[in-house]
Amino acid sequence: MSSIYMETTNTGATAKAAIPVLEIFGPTVQGEGMSIGRRTMFVRTAGCDYRCSWCDSAFTWDGSAREELKKLSAENVWTELTALAEGGFDHVTLSGGNPLLLPQLGSLVELLRAKDIRIAVETQGSVWQDWVLLTDEVTLSPKPPSSGMNTDLAQLDNWVSRLKEGRPPVNAGSNANPPRTGPAYTLKIVIFNREDLDYAARLHARYPEVPLILQTGNPEPVGGETGDTALRLLAAYENLLGLVMERKELKDVRVLPQLHALVWGNKRGV
Amino acid sequence: MSSIYMETTNTGATAKAAIPVLEIFGPTVQGEGMSIGRRTMFVRTAGCDYRCSWCDSAFTWDGSAREELKKLSAENVWTELTALAEGGFDHVTLSGGNPLLLPQLGSLVELLRAKDIRIAVETQGSVWQDWVLLTDEVTLSPKPPSSGMNTDLAQLDNWVSRLKEGRPPVNAGSNANPPRTGPAYTLKIVIFNREDLDYAARLHARYPEVPLILQTGNPEPVGGETGDTALRLLAAYENLLGLVMERKELKDVRVLPQLHALVWGNKRGV
Repeated sequence: MSSIYMETTNTGATAKAAIPVLEIFGPTVQGEGMSIGRRTMFVRTAGCDYRCSWCDSAFTWDGSAREELKKLSAENVWTELTALAEGGFDHVTLSGGNPLLLPQLGSLVELLRAKDIRIAVETQGSVWQDWVLLTDEVTLSPKPPSSGMNTDLAQLDNWVSRLKEGRPPVNAGSNANPPRTGPAYTLKIVIFNREDLDYAARLHARYPEVPLILQTGNPEPVGGETGDTALRLLAAYENLLGLVMERKELKDVRVLPQLHALVWGNKRGV
Repeated sequence: MSSIYMETTNTGATAKAAIPVLEIFGPTVQGEGMSIGRRTMFVRTAGCDYRCSWCDSAFTWDGSAREELKKLSAENVWTELTALAEGGFDHVTLSGGNPLLLPQLGSLVELLRAKDIRIAVETQGSVWQDWVLLTDEVTLSPKPPSSGMNTDLAQLDNWVSRLKEGRPPVNAGSNANPPRTGPAYTLKIVIFNREDLDYAARLHARYPEVPLILQTGNPEPVGGETGDTALRLLAAYENLLGLVMERKELKDVRVLPQLHALVWGNKRGV
């Protein structure tokens, strides 16, 4: 939990604290997961409690991008978003790092909701914040063995159970059994090898009702020609498809590549 | 409407008639549309009322695959599906041609529902059949100007309105306002050029509440090395992303390539 970017959360952040932001960009395409292909804006926060061996956004926690770090209020973030694409977006993706380290991100979530913007958030599910229930799409992305990280299953159980429960209805009226509200959610697991696939299969058995997306790992997240990277990633995707189709317990999953990596390699800000 | 494959529908098919089938294959990946990446089985029916200039399944209507045509009962189709993947599938995609030419496909839809199999169907939305409302996912794919086809907007209006209405609840109980049931549905439009994108934007304005997916056109649906095809398709996808991001009225769309074409080129049966 030591990081140059973590002072805010480590020293008792409140819902009013500034948000440590590394990138705001768009409009562009969401290249992965449940809303793959969706036009969106990205807000990438700084700081992570994980150190995945193959992290494709290590600049959010390894100090290499410290010059780019801005501490922004929710209103500042909105100003930057509208400067990029005023009237041209209705969807914002909160990514990291791990945005769930930031209780103060709730202020941005509330502001975006008030503006009728759909909100997606991605996290490994290691730290809960109540503002999650005010978003629209939650990608829960626990990290498989190849990452070098350990999954806290009790914490993940807590996430799944709270997402399933959803938000309490604001006004149930006379309906004795008001419909659940809250974000749509999926599990997304990056797969580099058979051990990762076994891990995914175990989590799928543990949470059979949560849609599972398996995502091709990107073994060389930095450098290389875009065309070479694309063909290598497509070969990895084809290989993963083959492995998945052999396993009946994975009969109801989705298998996806990262579209942005296919198109742009590992370039940032697209 | 003349085709060697259309005798059945042209001569007064009933719900008991055999189903003209050209391919049954899987398990494999759904490479496009709302369930992109989903593990599924494909049942491809013969016959189409359209003749799109760039059709990637012209063998379903041009007579070239007449030797492969089988007339199958719903039970025959089920037998073939289980022979391929017994216990290894819970999702079947009905594709064509235009499966909506076949009233008798309702028998297969009912059989698959009884087996707890999710059903996806793809069609241009030119011909309605009531069995559509018994499926789970409907991809409505009207054809843009580059296809050389004309869209019957009155018919498309009818489709959208009936999908919106959904199925009447079987048992509403004491609930005065029972929730709508019926398939999830999206519009998916293949884009080859700016004229196609204008067409998509007009339909998006006409049906703003229907999620819109824009899909990269595949300009050389036959032949070529897989790697070359992939890089060409990725370039076309990147180009389409650029065109879409320029247009604020397309702020809420999804833009997707065909994953199967990226991985396998234009090979059949994968």
